[in-house]
Parts: sequence; structure tokens; C-alpha cells
Amino acid sequence: MTVTIIGIGLIGGSMALTLKERKFAHTIIGVDANAQHAEKALELGIVDKILPWKEAVSQSDIIILATPINVTERMLPGLLESCTHQVVLDVGSTKQTLCETINDNTNRKRFVATHPMWGTEFSGPQAAISGAFDQKATVICDREKSDPDALELVENMYRALGMHIIYMTSSEHDLHVAYVSHISHITSFALANTVLEKEKEEDTIFGLASGGFESTVRLAKSNPSMWIPILMQNRENILDVLNEHIAQLRKFKACLEKENYEYLGELINRANEIRRILK
Amino acid sequence: MTVTIIGIGLIGGSMALTLKERKFAHTIIGVDANAQHAEKALELGIVDKILPWKEAVSQSDIIILATPINVTERMLPGLLESCTHQVVLDVGSTKQTLCETINDNTNRKRFVATHPMWGTEFSGPQAAISGAFDQKATVICDREKSDPDALELVENMYRALGMHIIYMTSSEHDLHVAYVSHISHITSFALANTVLEKEKEEDTIFGLASGGFESTVRLAKSNPSMWIPILMQNRENILDVLNEHIAQLRKFKACLEKENYEYLGELINRANEIRRILK
Repeated sequence: MTVTIIGIGLIGGSMALTLKERKFAHTIIGVDANAQHAEKALELGIVDKILPWKEAVSQSDIIILATPINVTERMLPGLLESCTHQVVLDVGSTKQTLCETINDNTNRKRFVATHPMWGTEFSGPQAAISGAFDQKATVICDREKSDPDALELVENMYRALGMHIIYMTSSEHDLHVAYVSHISHITSFALANTVLEKEKEEDTIFGLASGGFESTVRLAKSNPSMWIPILMQNRENILDVLNEHIAQLRKFKACLEKENYEYLGELINRANEIRRILK
Repeated sequence: MTVTIIGIGLIGGSMALTLKERKFAHTIIGVDANAQHAEKALELGIVDKILPWKEAVSQSDIIILATPINVTERMLPGLLESCTHQVVLDVGSTKQTLCETINDNTNRKRFVATHPMWGTEFSGPQAAISGAFDQKATVICDREKSDPDALELVENMYRALGMHIIYMTSSEHDLHVAYVSHISHITSFALANTVLEKEKEEDTIFGLASGGFESTVRLAKSNPSMWIPILMQNRENILDVLNEHIAQLRKFKACLEKENYEYLGELINRANEIRRILK
């Protein structure tokens, strides 16, 4: 199997490494608009060769679009049109707008919309990790809109990556990820800005920052070129969740202001119920 | 050296294990109001024996108060008064109120106010980990108020735990921990409540929850009996930081509402500066 990966960053690079190691792919072709990334990916052995996208497509069985979602949206229609038998999938964090973009594409059925639920705050090919997706979930959206053979190939690919598959519609997907991913990023960005704004003694932050702080602020290192398009595309769902989150924070604030520690205890006990979900 | 640990939970238990292993202590005496915790600590070999606190104090060189901070505040005055030559330290997350409580205590100088900056969302003796404090920071507050020999003994103990020591006043301490610890907990509690409130499909959260969500919500599992007293005692500093945090979240909200993605980019770039501090 020959796999082309467009965008050899954290996600694309990690997929490349794992698919090659597990012999799902015998050849990985890399496509990247950033010449330095392309060169680095070759140097690190993440891809076997670098080609312009049209040439890569003609030599491939599967094409994985692992670019920021605004680039994916721009490239996908033309990419699909140039396909004969190939299967194209994307791995982006929002799905609804993208799927609408290609609703009338003659090759729509060669496309599978997916979202593997893994990432770190790092980016670029040097951040790629083999085996990163093991035991994580991947979402496949609107599966009935893909050809059965295309769907099956993508399912097999994700199984080779060690992932379990969850199926939903693209609009359900966008709603759920607003809760479990996008809001966490906004909270981390805002928390980083809070600390940077108020705490002028940076050496003290560095010295004191313990596990708790690092884990909640870690996501604030995330890349704006990836995150702005996500926040734009999932704007409405995110605003809903963000409004609720601000309302929840205001409850904590009111408890402290009014010294209502009984209600504060109820709020914390309620939050502890997340243990049921996150073991 | 005989060390008494009052409150053999996550922190007290982890200190006990490490101090024994590294031969700083030849005997660890445990004191715990919770008989099940005491028994568990004996069974796990965390302590050598369990005694009532007065007996324990009379047999010890150092007494570590590792109880929730409201219990610490209640016990510390009497504990100090019963000391002859012993050194007492606490390990709580707030310092100013506690230090004021014992300002006029005749044995004030046998006390050293400390805060080792490590913890997890778990509690109880079964959560104790040997070597947990290695390469972490500990704070010692108001050091000039302790006898030089008491201070030196506590410093040596923290070095045996593998920690580096930061000195500050108790009021500086309380301000800094509001930023680097307490606000992260409130954010996590509120985020857990947001998700539990809005996302009724719990199986979906469980399936999709990826690294990002888990790390920001992890602290929401933290124990209210520990956290309510902390939030009470550091109420004013925390309210300051919480107000700023809500204001920062509102900036993200306004960007999304007004579709001002240029300013959104500035906010994220600013948040990325946390990289300078958290490597």
C-alpha cells in the first residue's frame, strides 16, 4: 500500500511512522508546503520521498490530509476531483463545514471524514511519535456518504494504528468536540494569559509551578495557525459551551464572595463526578 | 531521627516512605484521626507504629503536620505548647492565617511553615508514592521566625526528599499559590461542571476524551475536604485571580462573537508565551 500524507506535522508524521512500522504502508510519500518540514521529515525517515501533491496522488492508494483545517478545506475539492480509484481522508478537528464543502463533489464517495482523538501541544515533523494513537478513539463521520470499500480501507488503517472507531454525524461530532477538546484549549489559553497578566514575578511561577498548573496550562502552548481555523469553524458550539463555562466559574466566584461554603462544597462534589467518566 | 507524621495521606505518606528509604528517619510514627487510614498506613509499611499525638510528640525529633489546613490550624497551637525541644512543620497550601494563629505562641520558634509543591488528585495512604518530591520546589515561609536549628533540620529534611527550597513571606506565598495552583483547581472544577451540565451523552465524553481534556479536568477529581479550607483561607487572592480569569475568558468570547480573528490570534500568541516559563 502506498500512502500519501499531506502535511507532515505532529499528526501526519505520527501516522506515517506507525503505518510504516506496522507494515500497513510499504511506501509513504510526503507532501508539505513548508520546504523545511518536508526536508526534516525525509531526514527523520518519516517519509520515503517528497513529491508535489498531484504526482503523489497518482502514485497512491490512500491520501491523508493532515493540514490545518482551513488548508484542508481549500485543498479537498480539487484533490478529490483528481482521484481515480484512490481514497482520501482528513484528520481535522471540525467536520461540518468541510463535509458541506464537498457535498456535490463527483468523487464525494472516495472521501472519508475522520478525526483521530490524539494530539499534543507540539507541532512539526520533529514532534511525531510512533505508536501515539494506540488505544485512543477515532471518529468517522457520515459514513453512509463514503463508498463501502473506501470506508473499509480507512477502518483497517485506523485498526492498524491501534485505534477504536466511533461513528457519528459531522454535526454531532462538532458539538461533542466543543466540550471535550475545544473548550479545554480556550480555558488553557485564558489561564496562561491570566497568570502572565497578573503574576509579574516570572521566576516565581517557574519555581512554584507544580503538576497541577502545568497540566491545566499545557494546552496554552498550542499553535494559533492550527487553532484559529478550528475556533472559527466551530464558533457556535464553542460559544455555547464557553457561556456555560463562564456561568459555572461565576458560581464559584459567588460562593467565595458570599462565603457560602456549603454551596461551594456542592459544586466541588458535583465536579468530582467526572471521576465516573474519567477513570 | 524519629519523625511523627500527623495525617498519613497522600503528602504525609509520601514523605514517610521517602524519609525512611533515604535513612533520614529510622522510625516513623503515624497519627491519624481516621482509624482506617492509620491501619492501612501500618499495613502498607508507611509507618512503624500508630500512637495518639501526645505520646508521638514526646518520642519524636520532628513532627510533620500533614492534615487538611483547617485541622492544622486547630491542632498547631496545642501541639507547639507540648513541645520541649522538638521541631514542628506543616505542609499546607496556605500560610498567612496559620502563621498569624501562632504569632504569640511561646514555642513559635520551634515551628517552620512550609509548603512542598507537589500533589496529585488522589488522597489517602494508598495514594502515597516514594520519591514523589524529587526535583520539585518547596517553600519555607517567614524563616526568621524559626530557631536556626529548627530551620536547619527542616532544610535538611527537604534536601533528603530531593527538593530545592524557595524562601518567601507567608503573604507572598499565598498570593503566588493563588496563581499557580488554586486557580487551576477552580478552573478544572468549573470545566467538569460545564461538561457534566451540557453534555448528557456521558459515553461520548468517555469515548472522545483525549489527552487535552483529561489533563485540564484531572484536578476536578480533587477532594472537597482538602480544598474548601484552602479556598476559604486564600479567598481574597483567589477572587482577584478569578476575576482576571473571567475577564480573559470574556475576551475570547468577544472575539468569537464579533468574529475578530485577528485579536483572537493576538490572545493565543500571548498565551503561547507561557512556553518561556513552562519548558
